[in-house]
Amino acid sequence: MNGAEALVGTLGANGVDTVFANAGTSEMHVVAALDGAPAMRPVLCLFEGVATGAADGYARVAGRPAATLLHLGPGLANGWANLHNARRAHVPVLNVVGAHPRAHDRLDPPLASRLAELAGSLGGTVTTASSADDVPTSAVGALAGTRGVRGGIATLVLPADVAWSDLSATPPSWPLAPAPSRPRPPAATVEEAWRWLRDGRAALVLGGSLGTEALADASSVAAAAGARLLVETFPAVLAHGAGVVSPERVIYLSEFAIAQLADLERVVLVGAAAPVGFFAYPGLPSRLLPPDCRILDLAEDGVDPAAALADLARASDAVRQPGPDADPVTAPDGDLNPASLAAAVAATLSEDAVVVDEANTAGLHLYSALAAAPPHRLLTLTGGAIGFGLPAALGAALGSGARVTALVADGAAMYTVQALWSLAREGLDVTVVVLANHAYDILRLERTRLGPLPNAGASHALTDLSAPTIDHVALARGYGVAARRVTDATDLVGALRDAAHEPGPHLIEVPLPAMAFGT
Amino acid sequence: MNGAEALVGTLGANGVDTVFANAGTSEMHVVAALDGAPAMRPVLCLFEGVATGAADGYARVAGRPAATLLHLGPGLANGWANLHNARRAHVPVLNVVGAHPRAHDRLDPPLASRLAELAGSLGGTVTTASSADDVPTSAVGALAGTRGVRGGIATLVLPADVAWSDLSATPPSWPLAPAPSRPRPPAATVEEAWRWLRDGRAALVLGGSLGTEALADASSVAAAAGARLLVETFPAVLAHGAGVVSPERVIYLSEFAIAQLADLERVVLVGAAAPVGFFAYPGLPSRLLPPDCRILDLAEDGVDPAAALADLARASDAVRQPGPDADPVTAPDGDLNPASLAAAVAATLSEDAVVVDEANTAGLHLYSALAAAPPHRLLTLTGGAIGFGLPAALGAALGSGARVTALVADGAAMYTVQALWSLAREGLDVTVVVLANHAYDILRLERTRLGPLPNAGASHALTDLSAPTIDHVALARGYGVAARRVTDATDLVGALRDAAHEPGPHLIEVPLPAMAFGT
Repeated sequence: MNGAEALVGTLGANGVDTVFANAGTSEMHVVAALDGAPAMRPVLCLFEGVATGAADGYARVAGRPAATLLHLGPGLANGWANLHNARRAHVPVLNVVGAHPRAHDRLDPPLASRLAELAGSLGGTVTTASSADDVPTSAVGALAGTRGVRGGIATLVLPADVAWSDLSATPPSWPLAPAPSRPRPPAATVEEAWRWLRDGRAALVLGGSLGTEALADASSVAAAAGARLLVETFPAVLAHGAGVVSPERVIYLSEFAIAQLADLERVVLVGAAAPVGFFAYPGLPSRLLPPDCRILDLAEDGVDPAAALADLARASDAVRQPGPDADPVTAPDGDLNPASLAAAVAATLSEDAVVVDEANTAGLHLYSALAAAPPHRLLTLTGGAIGFGLPAALGAALGSGARVTALVADGAAMYTVQALWSLAREGLDVTVVVLANHAYDILRLERTRLGPLPNAGASHALTDLSAPTIDHVALARGYGVAARRVTDATDLVGALRDAAHEPGPHLIEVPLPAMAFGT
Repeated sequence: MNGAEALVGTLGANGVDTVFANAGTSEMHVVAALDGAPAMRPVLCLFEGVATGAADGYARVAGRPAATLLHLGPGLANGWANLHNARRAHVPVLNVVGAHPRAHDRLDPPLASRLAELAGSLGGTVTTASSADDVPTSAVGALAGTRGVRGGIATLVLPADVAWSDLSATPPSWPLAPAPSRPRPPAATVEEAWRWLRDGRAALVLGGSLGTEALADASSVAAAAGARLLVETFPAVLAHGAGVVSPERVIYLSEFAIAQLADLERVVLVGAAAPVGFFAYPGLPSRLLPPDCRILDLAEDGVDPAAALADLARASDAVRQPGPDADPVTAPDGDLNPASLAAAVAATLSEDAVVVDEANTAGLHLYSALAAAPPHRLLTLTGGAIGFGLPAALGAALGSGARVTALVADGAAMYTVQALWSLAREGLDVTVVVLANHAYDILRLERTRLGPLPNAGASHALTDLSAPTIDHVALARGYGVAARRVTDATDLVGALRDAAHEPGPHLIEVPLPAMAFGT
């Protein structure tokens, strides 16, 4: 038994059943070892950013890590951006990265790089297997790194000679990583939070991964206390839809968020950080809460947010309200715009679907419209690194077995467009809706802070996607995904219904007007 | 005048005329500053790996840096792999990376990351502008970092508040980076190298960026000394074609290279490192030269390789031979295979073209066939990080003004396929030839070292690109690039000729058989 086989054995024994991979020569022994582990599904990704984004999507819905298999420094770098999003989602991801043997690396071959420094820059744990005998321990150590109290990105560096060398003896069993264990909040803190919420203008601000029960607890507490209920702008996974509490979302743009939060005197955080602007602007504060607002974090030090909300509900004696009623959504007709788009998606969504939202500016109405859709889970762009949507849809489909609808802005879709091929290859029931306004509209909006948007020059060149027009239907078909372009809202509703009734992935290109900024 | 304007002014004064960009909110002041600098061409790239690969291609043919404009940590990470290739090519690239203001970053907003550590992992210089007044000095410092004796990747981190703040006074002029100055080799070393080459079984091994004159010098020296003339496997830029000396290339696969070099007793390096295997294998040495082969590096300590070869030619009294004759290449007919592909490209190549070679396994015959093509420059995959070809073609076209032919394996094309759109947008005369064998054939070859390639399981799943088949013609058209698929060698010759006579980019999909490894 060699180190690669020991790695695959250890991962399998610890419940890792999916590997999103783009391997190279230095990982060939791991690939061969996977041949002997048919229970572990190898998913080929044409680009490493697809593999890592898929691992993120998988972890958000499955609650446990998939592995990635990446080739040396460049492979890890290609996956870095979506690992950033996964880190910000506090979900578990295990990267297996091949490396040159140390003696080979010292000779500075073409693919040598500062791999350890690169891995360290991800902000997770980095473990290097030092020998074949060390592999099971290293792998379990890396898995433990994914099970930190707030999730974690763990990178296991596997030198090729460690992979190909034999263990001195076959271990009688594989070591198991300790199960994650998260404390409940101290009772005194729960009591204090409950007092805070009743005192003055207060809000409960939620974040992270939030299920139906946790939202119901939070809602009943907020109602009993007369406090507002908010959720961070980009939660990792949010239960959402008819019958599910839909908290007010912190607004993305700083100036609007500051106005939204201006009356707050006390805030209790559960799974969220104190709201901070996505970007800094001259003359605007970075902290979005009023300067004198007091903040209590009920889920600090790794406390389980769901447990914290349950304890808070118990302490408050709040009566659990039934989930909000929701009228069925009426299928829209007429023009395509962000409102009719959102209504069409809400009117056609399958029960228990997963919705991946990288719609950006085109998604303005999605959250409110989907509140009346059948119950679903909503995944959002936690880390702000564009290119999340398509890979996350791939991973979420494999991690949940559910139907997935991914709403992806055209600019964002281009970052990791190769994910379409993996959707087709794996035959997944994923509907990709590309929102094609042929512009980086968010940047045009930001550019107008500095004056009128010019019709030419760099500001135009660097925000325009219309010359040439990208044909997303052609791209999808090129990757083996059935695709069509819709003309109006009725057509979109029909396309969404068709996609939901046919197996395999579908892409729908939705032409949307760009915002009018003078171009 | 703000920091962003000072940056653009300084770069312009130092000859930077092209910016490959994918900007975000934190770079918006730089974008606005570019509006006021129409001499600096902003080239929008849909993914940052396209921007950095284009900057590499630009630098290889222009000999001076383009700038990239990248968005925070994720943007730099997305560009990392092609910066690795550029570093290995020893060419100058200047990255401008936006950052959060320090006070904002400290609050850990969603896009905060370990940017300095990430930038450091590139192995180049990293400079952070600390104030608007500091920008010209920082920019010139970063430019100096691109002008190291062996080229360089320099990263200038520009916090948004530095970009938007006003300078205390407008500088009377922009500072200029010192011109690169590279020493000639010591006369005694030149004499020693000349003695070495005449003594026993010796070789002159070239690398880096090699022009016609340098190759002629090297060839005349080798001929006079009775030594072999070799070039590293993946030079950055190699003058090549009819009338140009074509050195024997070090073979890619270690076992063949070891056999190729087995008789050498002395090696003189000029611009190359001592040959090292691309990968390590059990039982094979990493060093490709015989263990007792003696090595002299004539271009160490930053010595200019071309000057070293000129000095060596002078010391040797070698008579410059006329360039080798070459019969015109006959256009092939019949089946499509690596040999007919190479002949078709050689038979149709434009004079003074740039050829970008990321053909990988399908490119086996290219180097020898192109030796008889019209004179051209050949760019190769210096760092081994896949995804170089299409972006490098974009940059090489802009940096040279010449016609570019890019030969890209289908697997490699997928890494940075978004470059096709920028080719169409900029209207560049680039012919992209996608070599579609629908497999990671090099990995299949490597896998057979471990035993027969299985027809199923991970080894099949992770090397197969045939299910579904990727339609490269559809992808190209989706990005606005004219495209066709050819059926035989005659058809390929016609398609190459048509592409060379029509303005703008063209893509030709060439079906090739995968190697037969039992699948």
